Amino acid sequence: MFGAVRKWLNQQTLPLLARGCAVLGTGGGGDSTIGLMMALQAVADYGPVPLLGLDELEDDALIMPCGMIGAPTVSIEKIENGDEGGRLLSQVEKVCGRPVAALMSGEIGGSNGLLPTVWAARLGLPVVDADGMGRAFPEIPQMTMELAGISPTPSVMTDERGNIIVFRACSGAWLERLERAAAVELGGAAASAEYMLTAGQARVATVLNSLSLAIRIGTIIDQAADDPVSALIGALPAFRLVVGKVVDVERRTTKGFVRGSAVVEGLGSDRARVIRLEIQNENLVALEGGSVLASVPDLITVLDSDTSDAIATERLRYGQRVTVIGFPCDPVWRTPAGLALAGPRPFGYDFDYVAVEELARARV
Amino acid sequence: MFGAVRKWLNQQTLPLLARGCAVLGTGGGGDSTIGLMMALQAVADYGPVPLLGLDELEDDALIMPCGMIGAPTVSIEKIENGDEGGRLLSQVEKVCGRPVAALMSGEIGGSNGLLPTVWAARLGLPVVDADGMGRAFPEIPQMTMELAGISPTPSVMTDERGNIIVFRACSGAWLERLERAAAVELGGAAASAEYMLTAGQARVATVLNSLSLAIRIGTIIDQAADDPVSALIGALPAFRLVVGKVVDVERRTTKGFVRGSAVVEGLGSDRARVIRLEIQNENLVALEGGSVLASVPDLITVLDSDTSDAIATERLRYGQRVTVIGFPCDPVWRTPAGLALAGPRPFGYDFDYVAVEELARARV
Repeated sequence: MFGAVRKWLNQQTLPLLARGCAVLGTGGGGDSTIGLMMALQAVADYGPVPLLGLDELEDDALIMPCGMIGAPTVSIEKIENGDEGGRLLSQVEKVCGRPVAALMSGEIGGSNGLLPTVWAARLGLPVVDADGMGRAFPEIPQMTMELAGISPTPSVMTDERGNIIVFRACSGAWLERLERAAAVELGGAAASAEYMLTAGQARVATVLNSLSLAIRIGTIIDQAADDPVSALIGALPAFRLVVGKVVDVERRTTKGFVRGSAVVEGLGSDRARVIRLEIQNENLVALEGGSVLASVPDLITVLDSDTSDAIATERLRYGQRVTVIGFPCDPVWRTPAGLALAGPRPFGYDFDYVAVEELARARV
Repeated sequence: MFGAVRKWLNQQTLPLLARGCAVLGTGGGGDSTIGLMMALQAVADYGPVPLLGLDELEDDALIMPCGMIGAPTVSIEKIENGDEGGRLLSQVEKVCGRPVAALMSGEIGGSNGLLPTVWAARLGLPVVDADGMGRAFPEIPQMTMELAGISPTPSVMTDERGNIIVFRACSGAWLERLERAAAVELGGAAASAEYMLTAGQARVATVLNSLSLAIRIGTIIDQAADDPVSALIGALPAFRLVVGKVVDVERRTTKGFVRGSAVVEGLGSDRARVIRLEIQNENLVALEGGSVLASVPDLITVLDSDTSDAIATERLRYGQRVTVIGFPCDPVWRTPAGLALAGPRPFGYDFDYVAVEELARARV
């Protein structure tokens, strides 16, 4: 069926993908370890999943972006049962009036970089090498498809019980409100599909090759001889914001999000530095005193200083030895429209975005 | 188009219907005066609406039960814009795959007894002489269609902005949770259609002739010479629970409902009596000391002692001279299944239902 497939999501590539998704998740997108376990089980049961470039699909092939919506603190306890993808697919095909050709991650970050593979394995469909963020963001319309003017609806939500909801919202912002309220009512997390689009549209409306990038990140960490953190920082490239220890975590699950903050105290040459991370599912801002070290839409990821594995916001705890890194987002997020959707101000911060590399240069 | 129509909802019958809906609303179902104003405008603009008996429709004619969902306190400030019915209809026809032949009130009470007429006038459709409660209840699955085993979904919700949501819930209870959360997010009230059914099903799964009953109630009040309260009580027949004055109202809009209580202090021969009404959108229970005077599913209505107009729970205020009446619900609510859905216990009360006429007999 997929004779000419060049890339596969299988027992070898999935663990690498998971490590990369955790890094690109900037703390959010759901637990990549749980996503990995589900994906490994799915490919063991149903066979490996083709990873297709968008140029391998016909222009009008229908793509279903999908994933989990809700608070990561919930999704590590309330696990999908695996049927969600099939229900999403059948409803999407019904409302769109034609078959879905491939699944796509709405966001590459965390478990949401892996869930489409779980569902695609069961459904016998490929996954495309692209996503709608190039990272994870907390809100639905913070997608490159929104910036490209693609309609977020009709969108579909389902849960492990079999409830199905189809939304035709009058805007991305209204879809966010309605899907969030439904996800809260369904227990804090649910599965959903939004911004259905064709392969032709996806070639210009998504972040391309993001699964390949995640696999490459995973490979770098996996193959680093003795200092995987430095290997990753050199390869991305990223900026080392601080090396230290988590000394405080404040976290609450509220209105369908994880909100809170974490404080990292410097160790070694960073001794006496105190960095505060502000969290809404993802790490939004890294602050030192009154200064911004990095902010959305750039990526801020907390790495285990030994293994270079990214630590999700719901897993942060006192005493962890961590290296906080910042690295540039996809260029589309640095446009005025991108910043209006996912810059510091739409998250409620009263400062303008400055690129992480400029902030780093100013500190030198 | 409706040449043989025997009954019309028009400038003459609608004011009578509105008065009757207020009485049958037991305090809820939305403000019947606003519903009346909308209905009068609609029939002035689009012509009168045929009121059809269920025997006037083909067995397989599709009926759309519809109305407003949410807190009455909200719906007197956030008014429908009139387009909701058309959006509900087009979505219902899409998900059901065939045209709707007639609209029906999900509940006859309050503005929900009138809204289908508002929409039917615009859509050129008839309204059927039946409803799903024979009164108003706060929760969606408290419908005779639920008792008859008719599926509540696919159901459709919309608002004045144009948002549309289609629910395929795994039970009536889940539909209630999901629609309520959506109604709250849409501002506290929205329009919806549930329990789509055929005329053949409706003949055994609804409360028949409830619009005719409401018009008859309105007529009795309208034509009473000097004591409309006594005329109404004699005609229903109903039990006079207390004649007095509203001395306290506690009311809050929370989670999509109006909840609270009202205290009526007796006047005249009822002097020294104190009756407390407990409210969830509708009047649920009338208590005197430790005794129940009446409870769901029987109807408890607060009448203006002078005019016999029913006073909705969101309009109750200190000083109103009122007569509280209780009268029997449709027999289907007195079955074990009916009481399990809408008796005192599902509303959280720790006592068994006793019929209002038995309670009255015991007091004598």
